[in-house]
Amino acid sequence: MTKTKPTVSNKDVALQTAMMLFLTKGYHVTSMDDIVKASKVSKTNIYYHFKSKEELLIAMVDQLTARYERQILSVAAQEDLTIAVRLERIVNMLTTNQSSMDVLGGCPFLTLYMQTSTESEQVRSQIKQFFDRQLHALERLLEAGVRNQELRSDLQVQPTAALMLTSIEGALFIAKACDNPRILQDLLQGLLALLK
Amino acid sequence: MTKTKPTVSNKDVALQTAMMLFLTKGYHVTSMDDIVKASKVSKTNIYYHFKSKEELLIAMVDQLTARYERQILSVAAQEDLTIAVRLERIVNMLTTNQSSMDVLGGCPFLTLYMQTSTESEQVRSQIKQFFDRQLHALERLLEAGVRNQELRSDLQVQPTAALMLTSIEGALFIAKACDNPRILQDLLQGLLALLK
Repeated sequence: MTKTKPTVSNKDVALQTAMMLFLTKGYHVTSMDDIVKASKVSKTNIYYHFKSKEELLIAMVDQLTARYERQILSVAAQEDLTIAVRLERIVNMLTTNQSSMDVLGGCPFLTLYMQTSTESEQVRSQIKQFFDRQLHALERLLEAGVRNQELRSDLQVQPTAALMLTSIEGALFIAKACDNPRILQDLLQGLLALLK
Repeated sequence: MTKTKPTVSNKDVALQTAMMLFLTKGYHVTSMDDIVKASKVSKTNIYYHFKSKEELLIAMVDQLTARYERQILSVAAQEDLTIAVRLERIVNMLTTNQSSMDVLGGCPFLTLYMQTSTESEQVRSQIKQFFDRQLHALERLLEAGVRNQELRSDLQVQPTAALMLTSIEGALFIAKACDNPRILQDLLQGLLALLK
């Protein structure tokens, strides 16, 4: 008898379930037992892959940052598109709810950071490095746009990159806190006007 | 024998101590006993003013939002200053650490929201209303600047106000998460360039 390999591993199911619970209910209120129950993966199996809730958290942040970075870099590398179009797609991608989850703080990274930064040095460091790399990716794109004269020659690269990253992060949070998705649409318009 | 009235009441001391603990250590890890110990106000006295930790939290958010709004409105009302100068002062005020506390999430409102929004409907509503009012105050100032021809006639009021509010909020958080105060300086520069 041959077995077909399952398309989603138990490890992945556990990780996705934990992510949904940590982001929409909270890290502290979610126990390993809750993850077992909601994922229907056995406790033995989950503990085989993750020795603790913190190990699950670290794997989750790794997966999330890798996914976002892959998406950002794949758009940034599309040299057949203008810099402005690539920036617009990146902003659009980051401000669109990617998972349809009702994430507690709007943005998954802000949510996980705020819940765990005081107890997990590693998560704090993963998230810091992720934001640092996002900022540099935006700076490089803006620089390229100024160099090839597509963007204004007097565009201030560092302040503009900081404005883009911080406003996206703040907008995800405030749209959630104010239950006002218009904030995200307004922001997208405001950022695009900035580049013209 | 006459007693001089203390300049700071026990109620205020308890509130300030609780604020320091909630913002720098966390709401959940702080007990009423911790507040008693750190404030040196007796338990009976604290419970006379605040029946629970949530009551302290609500009073604190009230005090914080009132303080910020007083400061913002007093600058906004200075009609001898140009709109650009008033906006610059408001942004400067909001991005400068007002208390020298090392607030967990950079901004006190984001920090308190992220820690308590799932359990205190009232705090969620207080913070939502605060952001809504801040957004409207910025929109009114920008409108006034466009009307008196001080700002560009094609300035998009709603998107620009959203960009200002969200980038300030995001910058406070990311400067803290990345341990990078340059983000706040860059942002200030980026926002000022926007108005010119």
